[in-house]
Amino acid sequence: MVIDETDGPARRYISVIGGGACDQETYELAGQVGRGVALLGAVLVCGGRTGVMEAAARGAKEAGGVTLGILPGHDRAEANPFLDLVVTTGLGHGRNLLVASSGDAVIAVGGEYGTLSEIGLALALGRPVVLLRSWRLARAAGEEAGIRQAETPEEAVEQAALALGLGRGRANP
Amino acid sequence: MVIDETDGPARRYISVIGGGACDQETYELAGQVGRGVALLGAVLVCGGRTGVMEAAARGAKEAGGVTLGILPGHDRAEANPFLDLVVTTGLGHGRNLLVASSGDAVIAVGGEYGTLSEIGLALALGRPVVLLRSWRLARAAGEEAGIRQAETPEEAVEQAALALGLGRGRANP
Amino acid sequence: MVIDETDGPARRYISVIGGGACDQETYELAGQVGRGVALLGAVLVCGGRTGVMEAAARGAKEAGGVTLGILPGHDRAEANPFLDLVVTTGLGHGRNLLVASSGDAVIAVGGEYGTLSEIGLALALGRPVVLLRSWRLARAAGEEAGIRQAETPEEAVEQAALALGLGRGRANP
Amino acid sequence: MVIDETDGPARRYISVIGGGACDQETYELAGQVGRGVALLGAVLVCGGRTGVMEAAARGAKEAGGVTLGILPGHDRAEANPFLDLVVTTGLGHGRNLLVASSGDAVIAVGGEYGTLSEIGLALALGRPVVLLRSWRLARAAGEEAGIRQAETPEEAVEQAALALGLGRGRANP
Repeated sequence: MVIDETDGPARRYISVIGGGACDQETYELAGQVGRGVALLGAVLVCGGRTGVMEAAARGAKEAGGVTLGILPGHDRAEANPFLDLVVTTGLGHGRNLLVASSGDAVIAVGGEYGTLSEIGLALALGRPVVLLRSWRLARAAGEEAGIRQAETPEEAVEQAALALGLGRGRANP
Repeated sequence: MVIDETDGPARRYISVIGGGACDQETYELAGQVGRGVALLGAVLVCGGRTGVMEAAARGAKEAGGVTLGILPGHDRAEANPFLDLVVTTGLGHGRNLLVASSGDAVIAVGGEYGTLSEIGLALALGRPVVLLRSWRLARAAGEEAGIRQAETPEEAVEQAALALGLGRGRANP
Repeated sequence: MVIDETDGPARRYISVIGGGACDQETYELAGQVGRGVALLGAVLVCGGRTGVMEAAARGAKEAGGVTLGILPGHDRAEANPFLDLVVTTGLGHGRNLLVASSGDAVIAVGGEYGTLSEIGLALALGRPVVLLRSWRLARAAGEEAGIRQAETPEEAVEQAALALGLGRGRANP
Repeated sequence: MVIDETDGPARRYISVIGGGACDQETYELAGQVGRGVALLGAVLVCGGRTGVMEAAARGAKEAGGVTLGILPGHDRAEANPFLDLVVTTGLGHGRNLLVASSGDAVIAVGGEYGTLSEIGLALALGRPVVLLRSWRLARAAGEEAGIRQAETPEEAVEQAALALGLGRGRANP
């Protein structure tokens, strides 16, 4: 990796979360989200493994982006091959907090129970959360849950960009 | 504390989760859930602080139960006064994993984003989860989300007991 | 467990740390430390497993004390049988922080690398640390490392008691 | 950042650990260690903050290396300005496990109690550890503690390289 002028403290990070196993359609959606994150100029953060995590990292790398994986175990060899840098944690599900925390915004694509926990943690940390074919969530009393919904990968990235104050133009050059 | 014959490795644990701030109605519901957990003979686990956590611990202690709190910080003085034993973690939201893990079943009463994360973590760990006036959750594709719903505190405790194979009778002496 | 008048927020906790495998002499030393902690009226905290952790919990229970185990995994069945209450964490070595944090003072008996990490964490948290046949530690520049040394189990407990302002009398009735 | 041909799964990582506050001499030593890590072609991992962490990252960046910081809090703005990528954890001292885990080898430069915990965690994970003007450690019974000592920054990097099977030549072009 070579640092260019756009790097540094001002760079934004977006976490893409979802299941370690997913169908082909979800894999493609996640790849498009990853691509959109890269085109925004944001770092793509993910859980470092297979399924949605791999698809998002792959999409970001194919678009020239920067990717960061945060693994549940201690063995970097468990990472997918589309990650520039990898953190190993040994915390198991405890690493979900780090994936939620390390993104300035979080986009969920599909997702299982672990994804649900990351949505909750991201919201607890005040991170904007965008859901794409993911969990449908409502509070008991019907109040606003503070969660953004998207219908397409492009819309998901656009909503994350808006929440972070990033211009649309960079994502659609 | 004095260990009696019902203690030991066979003892079951039930975590009660919910917001650190709650309205009076939720506080009373959580207290009744805590009472029910104690009458089942199970250890009441909670996040150790105020709101639903305090109410559940209080209800359990008033019914003669055993209570265990798991705090986000390093200072035991932040615990509510209804806990027999307290673990301090210093992990912040990272302690949510421990609350979810330490119960053989988990009952959510109301709840905010942190509660949502604990629901996700408990489900990821295969713990039975019962929701009482808590989040309404559905998967994108409409599949079964594997979560039990209860309408009353009694029903919530009963569902947790059933999931753990505990007899109903002990809870209704 | 039945709460008696000496319980509650004022109760002190002492963590006993050491290897999961140890020789017979170390096992006996750890048992005597656990016994001393119980006679002080303090809760005995440990990592919940075998070796020094088991010996300390066993010694405390045989002296009528209260014991709390904090496990690295998610399965309570991995706990030794001398624990009143058990927290499961799923954090692996990450649980070492909780063992260090949950004691108002920490006594190390023998110990391997994990014990060394707990000594460092306890010191970083400002917990008094007493070493009994454990690591010998010195700073590079020869400054005082702020660590207490003991030659016998009795002395180790006495030093922890002094550091916590607990009267000696309770430990030697 | 732009990925070049030397990146990818085969890339090695070396963590440099030490105090968040340090004297000028230690700062310079840490900088030289960071420079050596970069010249080896390894990723420099650190705790992301001031003192030794900053010096090592700065030395690595000035030598054209890649740097990764793992912060204790949730706010990326707390990172020093010499990091290519940053993970926020919110785990406080719990992040020490990640710094120890994410390096294939660990070099300690000076250091306080937190550094001591990282040394213990790295050893528990089987990571080679090199000490440079850091803690002096010995087991109670006088056995070999499995820790490498270095007298100079160059020697520290060389020992880490040897432990990882990296050729010396790359570090001394």
